[in-house]
Amino acid sequence: MARPTPLSGFPEWLPDGRVVEQHVLDTLRRTFELHGFAGIETRAVEPLDQLLRKGETSKEVYVLRRLQEEQAGDVAPPRGDTGAADKQLGLHFDLTVPFARYVLENAGRLAFPFKRYQIQKVWRGERPQDGRFREFVQADIDVVGAGELPYHYEVELPLVMAEALGALRDVGVPEVRILVNNRKVAEGFYRGLGLDDVEGVLRQVDKLDKIGPDAVAELLQAEQGATPEQAKACLELAAISGTDTAVVDRVRALAASYDAVTELLETGLGELAALVEAAARRAPGVVVADLKIARGLDYYTGSVYETVLVGHEQLGSICSGGRYDTLASDGKNTYPGVGLSIGVSRLVSRLLSAGLVAATRGVPTAVLVAVTDEAHRDRSDAVAAALRARGIPADVAPTAAKFGKQIKVADRRGIPFVWFPAQPGEDGATPEALAGEVKDIRSGEQAEADAATWEPPAADRFPRVVPVAAD
Amino acid sequence: MARPTPLSGFPEWLPDGRVVEQHVLDTLRRTFELHGFAGIETRAVEPLDQLLRKGETSKEVYVLRRLQEEQAGDVAPPRGDTGAADKQLGLHFDLTVPFARYVLENAGRLAFPFKRYQIQKVWRGERPQDGRFREFVQADIDVVGAGELPYHYEVELPLVMAEALGALRDVGVPEVRILVNNRKVAEGFYRGLGLDDVEGVLRQVDKLDKIGPDAVAELLQAEQGATPEQAKACLELAAISGTDTAVVDRVRALAASYDAVTELLETGLGELAALVEAAARRAPGVVVADLKIARGLDYYTGSVYETVLVGHEQLGSICSGGRYDTLASDGKNTYPGVGLSIGVSRLVSRLLSAGLVAATRGVPTAVLVAVTDEAHRDRSDAVAAALRARGIPADVAPTAAKFGKQIKVADRRGIPFVWFPAQPGEDGATPEALAGEVKDIRSGEQAEADAATWEPPAADRFPRVVPVAAD
Repeated sequence: MARPTPLSGFPEWLPDGRVVEQHVLDTLRRTFELHGFAGIETRAVEPLDQLLRKGETSKEVYVLRRLQEEQAGDVAPPRGDTGAADKQLGLHFDLTVPFARYVLENAGRLAFPFKRYQIQKVWRGERPQDGRFREFVQADIDVVGAGELPYHYEVELPLVMAEALGALRDVGVPEVRILVNNRKVAEGFYRGLGLDDVEGVLRQVDKLDKIGPDAVAELLQAEQGATPEQAKACLELAAISGTDTAVVDRVRALAASYDAVTELLETGLGELAALVEAAARRAPGVVVADLKIARGLDYYTGSVYETVLVGHEQLGSICSGGRYDTLASDGKNTYPGVGLSIGVSRLVSRLLSAGLVAATRGVPTAVLVAVTDEAHRDRSDAVAAALRARGIPADVAPTAAKFGKQIKVADRRGIPFVWFPAQPGEDGATPEALAGEVKDIRSGEQAEADAATWEPPAADRFPRVVPVAAD
Repeated sequence: MARPTPLSGFPEWLPDGRVVEQHVLDTLRRTFELHGFAGIETRAVEPLDQLLRKGETSKEVYVLRRLQEEQAGDVAPPRGDTGAADKQLGLHFDLTVPFARYVLENAGRLAFPFKRYQIQKVWRGERPQDGRFREFVQADIDVVGAGELPYHYEVELPLVMAEALGALRDVGVPEVRILVNNRKVAEGFYRGLGLDDVEGVLRQVDKLDKIGPDAVAELLQAEQGATPEQAKACLELAAISGTDTAVVDRVRALAASYDAVTELLETGLGELAALVEAAARRAPGVVVADLKIARGLDYYTGSVYETVLVGHEQLGSICSGGRYDTLASDGKNTYPGVGLSIGVSRLVSRLLSAGLVAATRGVPTAVLVAVTDEAHRDRSDAVAAALRARGIPADVAPTAAKFGKQIKVADRRGIPFVWFPAQPGEDGATPEALAGEVKDIRSGEQAEADAATWEPPAADRFPRVVPVAAD
């Protein structure tokens, strides 16, 4: 086998990169659990017909076939034959579709409102040339109700994500801003103006960052049949943003000036105000109402969220979500939900490639126990076992090489301490099995120690993730 | 969408089952890390030609196709056309093939011997009718050397697994037995007897449990051309087992009685003795030399391991592995390795279906903070935030229903404590925001408490996994 090369779009980390990713995952999990979210995991596959229910994602699905099935005949299997005994399966491309299915499948055995987190890989069958991730880890939180779901969850969920990402600040993750908007505000405003093709207007407004306001105004007139005044009003709405409830007053005043106040707009503004107000109190400066957010407003029905890393805005949103009035439905019951999803791989990839964070080492090991000679390896094993029994990750040198070489084994891996088991004295007396000397190979300091009691400094016990100082 | 039904072979757990699985995974991870194994994760896919290098597994691979690709033409894509721009990909069916590839791909950036653990899902394209798992979680440990790998790792790795599984004893996981054998012993013995079709003999010996010794003896004569005496010797070897080095003496005596002692046999017996001896010292009773173990001896080159749960032997091996002289090779360099793999899904599935273990609750939440009325939800939020800040998982009631109903919300989820924020006094004075009363809903006991200082009993802070008493 020749040396293999990476597959574009399928990221993998070296051990020290994995320490960073694992720290991110552990931190997210801990925050989610402190907030009462139950962890679940769903299978990686769903029936293809379920994955394709929203038509536009169809091009991104990986379809599975058993190799045997492929090779079984000379004739290609009928396309789209989902009625076959072995239903056609595809890899999930997000965690929302499988979660909605899990809720329906287990509705009778879950307690609603059901809060769950889910951290798993997802796959998108992108063309390899496009340089996008084709496999990546997502971390989702959602709360889903049976029949109804109180609005306050639309306030809480982005704040949980803000807390989760905020818990990563001290290892070097940049500050985040959560940009929020509300479908009811946009729709209420547009309808108040007399623009009833709400999805069409949103589609144009979504192009603001790319093509600028003049071009968007032209498109609104050309494609949505807006008057110049209506187009102007849409752009004025999109220009409003801020971190306090003054935002809501500005939208209301704008709508009044166009005589476009509607009941739906008022409902939406009430929701947006509650969100901005609670956020300002609980996580000052993190949540920004931004009325130009249009992405997702075509399928979300209330609040919508996007999250940028301050200073890395060009990376796009690393954590998005919103409210669905119908996350799932079995015809009889409807399950509204609200949730957000962090693109963990995208975040970790940026942290590593931009050199923002680093792991103090790529192995868990805090102590490498040296081996004096192979005949006495059991003494070294006993020392390592005593350290591990007290929660100190320890490894034993691979061979009884010269001590200088054994120290290099530790050094190459970033292991901070090397333990030298005690030697028989000059009088030939056997020393205590757990006695020895421990050397901090960074400082060169060496001291007598007993493996039954010695402790490394807390900061050295496990690998840590630390911010890398900017040059 | 009608209520969906489970897909056979793709296990999923309800939240309390996931608590059990997560506990197993956390325990394994902790043990592996204490022993210095670095965690890595590889992508879920490998090029199909790599997955098919060992021909016999080919029937179990899931092949991936982008849906767009499938729908692109009227003509089926050429079978086996791996030279296409988008190389054909399949889901990995174990963690050894991807690990070997990872080692080759990153050889220049890894420190050898390289110890890694890897906990991931794997997929096998089994026919759905067969009732086997088609998606399951494996937890692997391996150590791989560059060019050479000292024998002592063949002793250490099964002991790490014994420790990892042993750490699950107190939650109700049954005792384990690790059955070991050694390719060199088997091959040296058979060749000493004059039987050179070693794989063939192993294949027959592997049928012992199914068809019994007489039938195996017949097959050895019919298919491997053994004499009745040679067949008898093979069966006598397979009958030897034990937990101490007396086993080795018995094999040597048996070989001598047939004049079948070879250098290879002696090497193998030396290795087996070292393993049995160290295991008897470090984990008494866990490792059993069992000379009838034949599975895997066709591709492993030294030690081989199988693991059974005592009392659940019919489940088969839940943790297997062995030594490869060539785990990976790029033509220039060879990387020997030794490792074991735990079938986590199979283990968890058995624990849950046999009712051996249970989670104390399916949510992380230790405290549900009641809401007096929606206008004062922020007081409840503040209590929950204060508890979380001290690492106590807390949730806030979904609605300001009657307290009895809010207690039911906790009860349905197994949340042990309900917190009632303090009410304004009769004099109208506002109480401290974090003051209140906390009720243990199991005992009904209720007491005044301050969210800044109150602690739940340690056993209630997080959900735990506990053994279920046998009837």
